[in-house]
Amino acid sequence: MELLITGASQLVTLSGAPGPRRGVAMREVGVIENGALLARNGTIVAAGRSSDVERLPAAKRATVIDATGKVVLPAFVDSHTHLVFAAPRLTDFEMRIGGAKYEEIAQAGGGIASSVRTTRNAGREELAARAFHYAQHALSYGTTTLEVKSGYGLDAETEIRILEVVRDVSSAELPELIPTFLGAHVVPQDTPRAAYLKLLTHELIPQVSREGLAEFCDVFCDRGAYTLAEARTIFRTAARHKLKLKIHAEQLSRTGSAVMAARMGAASADHLDCVTRADIAVLAKSRTIATLLPGCSMFLGLAYPPARRLIDGGAAVALATDFNPGTSPTLSMPLMMSLACTQMRMSPAEALTAATVNAAHAAGRGRVVGSLECGMQADIAVFDASDYREIPYYLGMHTCSMTIRKGKIVHSARRP
Amino acid sequence: MELLITGASQLVTLSGAPGPRRGVAMREVGVIENGALLARNGTIVAAGRSSDVERLPAAKRATVIDATGKVVLPAFVDSHTHLVFAAPRLTDFEMRIGGAKYEEIAQAGGGIASSVRTTRNAGREELAARAFHYAQHALSYGTTTLEVKSGYGLDAETEIRILEVVRDVSSAELPELIPTFLGAHVVPQDTPRAAYLKLLTHELIPQVSREGLAEFCDVFCDRGAYTLAEARTIFRTAARHKLKLKIHAEQLSRTGSAVMAARMGAASADHLDCVTRADIAVLAKSRTIATLLPGCSMFLGLAYPPARRLIDGGAAVALATDFNPGTSPTLSMPLMMSLACTQMRMSPAEALTAATVNAAHAAGRGRVVGSLECGMQADIAVFDASDYREIPYYLGMHTCSMTIRKGKIVHSARRP
Repeated sequence: MELLITGASQLVTLSGAPGPRRGVAMREVGVIENGALLARNGTIVAAGRSSDVERLPAAKRATVIDATGKVVLPAFVDSHTHLVFAAPRLTDFEMRIGGAKYEEIAQAGGGIASSVRTTRNAGREELAARAFHYAQHALSYGTTTLEVKSGYGLDAETEIRILEVVRDVSSAELPELIPTFLGAHVVPQDTPRAAYLKLLTHELIPQVSREGLAEFCDVFCDRGAYTLAEARTIFRTAARHKLKLKIHAEQLSRTGSAVMAARMGAASADHLDCVTRADIAVLAKSRTIATLLPGCSMFLGLAYPPARRLIDGGAAVALATDFNPGTSPTLSMPLMMSLACTQMRMSPAEALTAATVNAAHAAGRGRVVGSLECGMQADIAVFDASDYREIPYYLGMHTCSMTIRKGKIVHSARRP
Repeated sequence: MELLITGASQLVTLSGAPGPRRGVAMREVGVIENGALLARNGTIVAAGRSSDVERLPAAKRATVIDATGKVVLPAFVDSHTHLVFAAPRLTDFEMRIGGAKYEEIAQAGGGIASSVRTTRNAGREELAARAFHYAQHALSYGTTTLEVKSGYGLDAETEIRILEVVRDVSSAELPELIPTFLGAHVVPQDTPRAAYLKLLTHELIPQVSREGLAEFCDVFCDRGAYTLAEARTIFRTAARHKLKLKIHAEQLSRTGSAVMAARMGAASADHLDCVTRADIAVLAKSRTIATLLPGCSMFLGLAYPPARRLIDGGAAVALATDFNPGTSPTLSMPLMMSLACTQMRMSPAEALTAATVNAAHAAGRGRVVGSLECGMQADIAVFDASDYREIPYYLGMHTCSMTIRKGKIVHSARRP
């Protein structure tokens, strides 16, 4: 089962030393003009100039994709989403535009509590159908790896149901869905704080781990959610149960959670709007990826996270959509790249690195996807462009023409 | 040739009194649940509840489009684009992110002068192929009417060539392209100011009018471009030659051009970032549409135009993309609606009115497109959504599933 993609205006490999990219290395994306790539059984076996790759014996029997006038990239990794929920929050959206504050929206029955209510009431099939639909959208924008968090259940039954939906929806026709247990999203309104924390640490984390329902455990550590001490307790329990760690850190206020997460070896610290210089120094020396979520800033009309300070300070920066119904209803990684470039002053190369190789590390897939090198999985996005910088440049335009996962075409656009 | 679109979750008609919508009328979009629409020979002959429309005799012989789970809208009108140019300006994009000022970009060979240089050097076929490609993109986002300006030629030969390309590319398979002569974009570097003004008023405007190459004449009235007095002279010449008027007004500085344009009966005054309260009062009493271009603000990372002050002050507000290679590389009207809602505090209904009926008036097509009423042209966008508010809500997502122009399907998306 050979696949040859050849004649690309640019093959952008993101190849180089293993591990996430930092500092000036984020600008080295590895462009091969007139490039080609050969995959066998879902794995990349050659990447280089078309004339060289086409000459390989295995290329003779390959299915050929003509990428003339196209840019070929590693498919995007979206390392932070809340893909499973029951309904968009259109009323909240309209109220916020009208000037309503968070408290007023909550009093009107909106906010996270409304997603919890509708998700608890939704059937398994309904949640699965919506998640499937959204995951297909992600594919069409060039994403083949999606991290997916629970967190709209906030009771034992619904949290487990969400993770089971993620497992059951998963298929070779969709992006890989990587499940994360976010029981610690907020404290549910109907359960005493101590009792809910006990449920998380004594029942749900052990169950999720035992049944293999999640790979990561995440905590929203902020005002209105969990304290630093609570997050540490949850992390310790999760680590004991062999779950990898992620954290919602320094979003609404500076809590110290990014540093705590970095010291405990978390795969990523996400949001980081309120991160300090000292926090950045710790992140720069850690293996924790600083994951920025500009969709949230755009949707809420807020300031953007300090990408320049993080990159210039040596943190390995990733981009993700934070897809969720309340604060970031988008699955478009190209739009995240546009926001990174236009609002956060990341260069197109930095944005691409952040959306691929660094995002793969944030999702625990740094050795599998995120670059086009021999031995990596053949997860590839083909764009209707002659220069990769066109991807962030054309705001909100749909230029992904083909998405390939494990060497198989999983999305193909009609022109344009 | 009957076409029946039926079973729509929402048919959003934008019907009502003729003329542009102002003030609270911008919020009245006319939603019919379980709605249907019947067209004959490209004209709408019925719009209402599915049960009523399906009962009509003509509905029995119609081609049927099942719009279950879809929102059916008037197709978008993009009333301000610079569709014809030779190349994206990727180097400018990267330099600006790196902190370069406009002057440095210009010194490095970028800026408008670079688009003029490449467009002058481009062949007719090359310009036409690129314009065709972009116009197809516009269709895929739900746009069936595109105003297109010249202005990257700035000499007699190239300005005329651009307008001829617009004429020659036009076809039933694309949006309607409405040509605007923008010879007065900037003063070309290679021609004395007085000589170029004379070329515009004594040769090009008469020629463009005589040959029917443009419907509108536009002037960029701002610092670095044309003065108010020059703009008035150009407008008088254009009006004498039966060209309708549009203006780039109050973008970088307040010049008084919006008021001048309103008093001269211009169809639209566009940009308006620096508009004053007194200007708004004049616009509110005029028939001139206040056209806002938020793609420009996003791409350049600048403040957004004052939509709330304009709407609340009684101006009829439209949205357009300003598609151009230097300051707004986007053809997505859904993204413009998202920016209007999230950055300019327009409600989803106001944004939809601004992208359809008011935009149609800005493009001189207010009696032809922009609403779904009997007698209007059957230009229709079908979205994969159950509520029209989802269109601005899902940032950068591609939810237009079908575009219809004059009763014929001109775009149809694969799922999703």
